[in-house]
Amino acid sequence: MTDAGTTAAEAAYRGVRAAVVGTGLIGGSILLRLRDAGLDVTGWDPDPTTRDQARERGVSILETVEAAVAGRELVFLCGPLPTLPTALSAVAAASGPDCILTDVGSTKAEVAAAAARQGLLHRFVPGHPMAGAELAGLTAAGPTLLDGAAWVLCPGPVTAPFRWLTGLLLAVFGARVVPLAAAEHDRAAALASHVPHLLAGALAGATHRTAAPDAVLALAAGSFRDGTRVAATPAARTVNLLLGNREEVLRELTGVRAYLDDLAAALRTGDRERLTARYDEAGAVRRLLSDRAYTTRVRDFPVDGDHTGEVGWLRETGAAGGYLGACQVREGRVRYTARLPRAGSGVTRGPDGPADAVDRR
Amino acid sequence: MTDAGTTAAEAAYRGVRAAVVGTGLIGGSILLRLRDAGLDVTGWDPDPTTRDQARERGVSILETVEAAVAGRELVFLCGPLPTLPTALSAVAAASGPDCILTDVGSTKAEVAAAAARQGLLHRFVPGHPMAGAELAGLTAAGPTLLDGAAWVLCPGPVTAPFRWLTGLLLAVFGARVVPLAAAEHDRAAALASHVPHLLAGALAGATHRTAAPDAVLALAAGSFRDGTRVAATPAARTVNLLLGNREEVLRELTGVRAYLDDLAAALRTGDRERLTARYDEAGAVRRLLSDRAYTTRVRDFPVDGDHTGEVGWLRETGAAGGYLGACQVREGRVRYTARLPRAGSGVTRGPDGPADAVDRR
Repeated sequence: MTDAGTTAAEAAYRGVRAAVVGTGLIGGSILLRLRDAGLDVTGWDPDPTTRDQARERGVSILETVEAAVAGRELVFLCGPLPTLPTALSAVAAASGPDCILTDVGSTKAEVAAAAARQGLLHRFVPGHPMAGAELAGLTAAGPTLLDGAAWVLCPGPVTAPFRWLTGLLLAVFGARVVPLAAAEHDRAAALASHVPHLLAGALAGATHRTAAPDAVLALAAGSFRDGTRVAATPAARTVNLLLGNREEVLRELTGVRAYLDDLAAALRTGDRERLTARYDEAGAVRRLLSDRAYTTRVRDFPVDGDHTGEVGWLRETGAAGGYLGACQVREGRVRYTARLPRAGSGVTRGPDGPADAVDRR
Repeated sequence: MTDAGTTAAEAAYRGVRAAVVGTGLIGGSILLRLRDAGLDVTGWDPDPTTRDQARERGVSILETVEAAVAGRELVFLCGPLPTLPTALSAVAAASGPDCILTDVGSTKAEVAAAAARQGLLHRFVPGHPMAGAELAGLTAAGPTLLDGAAWVLCPGPVTAPFRWLTGLLLAVFGARVVPLAAAEHDRAAALASHVPHLLAGALAGATHRTAAPDAVLALAAGSFRDGTRVAATPAARTVNLLLGNREEVLRELTGVRAYLDDLAAALRTGDRERLTARYDEAGAVRRLLSDRAYTTRVRDFPVDGDHTGEVGWLRETGAAGGYLGACQVREGRVRYTARLPRAGSGVTRGPDGPADAVDRR
């Protein structure tokens, strides 16, 4: 039996003692969702006003980060990106040795390196839910903000925390868990999220400087609204994510600029054929976002022993555009159910996904 | 009394004989809306399949453009941009001398020049509804697609057709009619619509060429989805609108690239302060799209005689970011009710809007 308002999948996590450190847009949304799913959740935020707002929403907020994480089984680190290495250290010291830690920062290599330096790879799982809004703060948070999101997790050398957290994210958030190495996440996020923030900033900023900006805004419909939306993100958050992934962002921006140069050159010379070919190519990629066909692959691995094969398969799954839809541990084995783009439905090739696994049930 | 399903405002246009030439996404949506509002509408499309689809939706479709426009009071030209000058000539020849003509093309200077050459300025009103979708064709059309849209109309030396069409668009579509000179429309549309298509194409196209495109798509959330949406527009339509406004698009693209260069340079040197200042500026412009405060201005002009003052005021209203909310003719005068960005709510200055008019009612 489950409580009213929680599902059977969620019921497995009822009563789990979790904490959220940093209860802004993302952290607040995680906290509210965990609470609604029946977990025992505490929170903390450095801002007293945010703490008061959280209490008004009926959330258990403590006055110090140490009090919030003491005795917890799981802690989400949701503060601003530059604060994560320090917050990780503080939370690790204040929590028990088996407490699983994760974060929601928009880049992963730096915080993963900090965890390695701090000897936390056995219990820290770098994470990044690919959702959000151009709004900020707990007032914009809600328990459904992250429902169904793609949620990157970076499996480390010890996979038990990864498996357990994957199960929770699947059950509570209905997440599509994308397993990726930290460096591969940062490269993909540069194009999937950070460069779009640069383009949106350039389009909105150039409108500030054009000859008749008010007429532009009067005419702004879908393409301009969509193309500038994330320019309204609080500047500090945008700047943090760009600076936190600088090398990858600049590298991917080079490719986008080259494509833009190509389009502009074809436009300048009136080369209809070349323009059409470029837009056919670009449109085919964009349509994959909604039209992609997936196939299911099941793989299992021993729970104990060396995890190299498991980690390799997981990272390969994410790199091929796949995600995890189930993760079950039984009788000494972990079984993953992955969804992978069907052959011919990848961008440039069929996915380098693993072969279909034997169903060992 | 009005029929069920039509409003009092629409009732004034019941039975008006209108035609739509080109019944794709935009033309089809106009036709369906006009029909639902009680107008007597005929249509024509060069594609026999589209004609059949339109008939299946209960629309009166004729076999030739001449038959569709004969005896009509109003014709919307909704074919592809490059066909408009020719279509204008054909429709003008097949319609009566008092039939008002308008179009929905994404650029206005070229078709306005064609109308001048053809001696049609007394009955052709260049138009451009600022709405649409990345989809195409009658199957994607619907009677509500253009509801509430910003709809540019270019007032010419004879304003009677402009006034009448403005009244119809306000009543039937709930449009915000933005009056602009054709050249000013084209410049504003370059940044409001055409450059966003270039940026979307570059972002989606570069994804095709990056090292791990499938992982990018797996992570794609709001900013990538929004930033690439119009890349899925049929390539031929995108190429038409870019080539149709080439000079203005390239000029505005220069400004966007300069802003992007500036962002990239600040990112490369890790200049947090400069990045933040740029995003503060860009964010302020973007937030005006939803937060802008408007004030109402009323002006009237004599219906007869020289229309220079009326046309100048109208164009000034659109250039300042304003739009028309009402247009009434009575006792030899036309009264416009305009909504203008409130002083301090423009981008770089208070609007150069006209002074408050005396209410002459």
